[in-house]
Order: sequence, then C-alpha cells, then structure tokens
Amino acid sequence: MFTPWPIGFVSTPYKDTSDIPKGLGTRHDAEGVITILPDFELGLTDIEGFSHLFVIWEFDRTQHFELLGTPPADNRRHGVFATRSPLRPNPIGLTVVELLHRNKAELHVRGVDMLDGTPILDVKPYLSSIPSESLRRGWLEEAEARANGNATVS
Amino acid sequence: MFTPWPIGFVSTPYKDTSDIPKGLGTRHDAEGVITILPDFELGLTDIEGFSHLFVIWEFDRTQHFELLGTPPADNRRHGVFATRSPLRPNPIGLTVVELLHRNKAELHVRGVDMLDGTPILDVKPYLSSIPSESLRRGWLEEAEARANGNATVS
Repeated sequence: MFTPWPIGFVSTPYKDTSDIPKGLGTRHDAEGVITILPDFELGLTDIEGFSHLFVIWEFDRTQHFELLGTPPADNRRHGVFATRSPLRPNPIGLTVVELLHRNKAELHVRGVDMLDGTPILDVKPYLSSIPSESLRRGWLEEAEARANGNATVS
Repeated sequence: MFTPWPIGFVSTPYKDTSDIPKGLGTRHDAEGVITILPDFELGLTDIEGFSHLFVIWEFDRTQHFELLGTPPADNRRHGVFATRSPLRPNPIGLTVVELLHRNKAELHVRGVDMLDGTPILDVKPYLSSIPSESLRRGWLEEAEARANGNATVS
C-alpha cells in the first residue's frame, strides 16, 4: 500500500485525550487551525468556497487496536467499525469541520476533536448530507434512549 | 507515520475508471459488497444498526498527485483539497454508503464509487449530518449554476 505522509498539522485546545469532550450529547464546537505544509498549499485553491470540510487525520498517539471496545457514549461493547474509537486497525480519524476562514496555508475551522499537533492526511470538500430522517444510528440511538429513560428494556 | 494495511476489499461494478459515473448531477446508487478480512470481522459487531457508513479506502491504481486539477463536474481548475480527485498527496478515498444488510463478514452497500477490488482502510458509522441549508459548496454550486444557465457572469 501507499506510505502516508502529513500534508499539515492541526492546532487544537486539546493537549491530552482526557481534555476532549466525549459521550452522549457532546457537541464539538472547539476552534482550531489546520496549517498545510508549503509543498501542498496550492492544493487549497478555491477551498474557501466550502462551508464544511472532511478532515482525515492520523491517531498518532495510539499504539494498538481493539476489535471490541466500550465507547464513552455507552456502557456496552461494540465493534470498532461501529464506533469512532481511536484504537483502529488503521489509525485514521475523520472529522467534519466548519471552515470559518482561510488565511494562506491556514484553515481556521470549528469542530475539531483531535489532539493538538495531530498530523493531517487529507482534506476534502463536504458536498452533501444524508437527510437526518433517513439515518438509523444503531447502538447510539439505543444508548440515548436509555439515558433519557425511554427504553422499554434495559 | 503508521503503515496502512487493508481491512478488506470491495467488489463493485466498475472495472475501469471510465465506468464510474462522474460529473454534475451524478447519483451513486450502484451496489457493492465490502468483505472484511477474517482477522477483523469481530470489529463489525453491531454495525448492522447503522443505515449509513463512511468507507475510507485507498486509490490503489494512482501513481502521482496533482495539486491543481479540472474535475469532471467543471471546466475550471481547482485545488485538490477542494475536489474529490484521486490524484491526492495521500491516495485516500472517502465514500458514504447506505448499509443494505450484513452477512457475516460481508457488508452489502449502496452508493459505491470505487473500482472493483479496491482495498478498504476503515469503516466508521455515519452519526449525523450537516443540514443542507447550512452548506456552501463553492465552485460546485457555481458550476451547477452555469450548467443551468443561471450564472450572470460565466
């Protein structure tokens, strides 16, 4: 396969994983700055027209993976591919951010949930959404229902 | 950085890039099957509760990247990070698919736009959408407007 390399790095308010908001009802509205390396800055041309971006990044401070784990939003175990766990076979993270503004090689964004200094692998435009009414969200919906006392069976 | 490895492969109707629908107004409703390797199958636990998934994959048949390129949906050049071009510094693709059903290690999905046999790097649950009315889509909206004859300046 290919050999990944960073196209840039993100600065965020989070120095430690314990600083990152997690669990049911968490909103990610922290701001951060993605700085693209000079070799790749030309690739940002026209990006400022997009309100939202997909950011693909490396979980660079994880050392192993777990196929089953208990996410912060639940007290039950689920498969890694059904969660956003950092302990993945390929340590790749995905975050949707709002692009606030661009200043040359800097993308000022809202919605970061990475550790400060995380290497960025790719940035892509967010082009369309699945309508919320079409979404089923599996164990997360069930955990939300239990937390709200709406579950018929615990 | 980490060394990527495939967690599985996807079978799709597309043997050649020219087979893949592209350009303005393209809808991706082709069906495919993501087969996860036996070592990772346990990581699919509870994934069947989700209607949509993010699939992260390798553009395994590209050899170089281009910081500027003309996408199929436009006749103007844009930065690679403002497009879904396969010619990216890290050859990583991202596709949102609808999960039709799971059969053991097989995820039967709708919405594939990868070549047949593409290596899969990760699968994540699709948990929420940005409301369409909040999205700005930059050059793509402009290209759509020109195609519809609504642009005041070409």
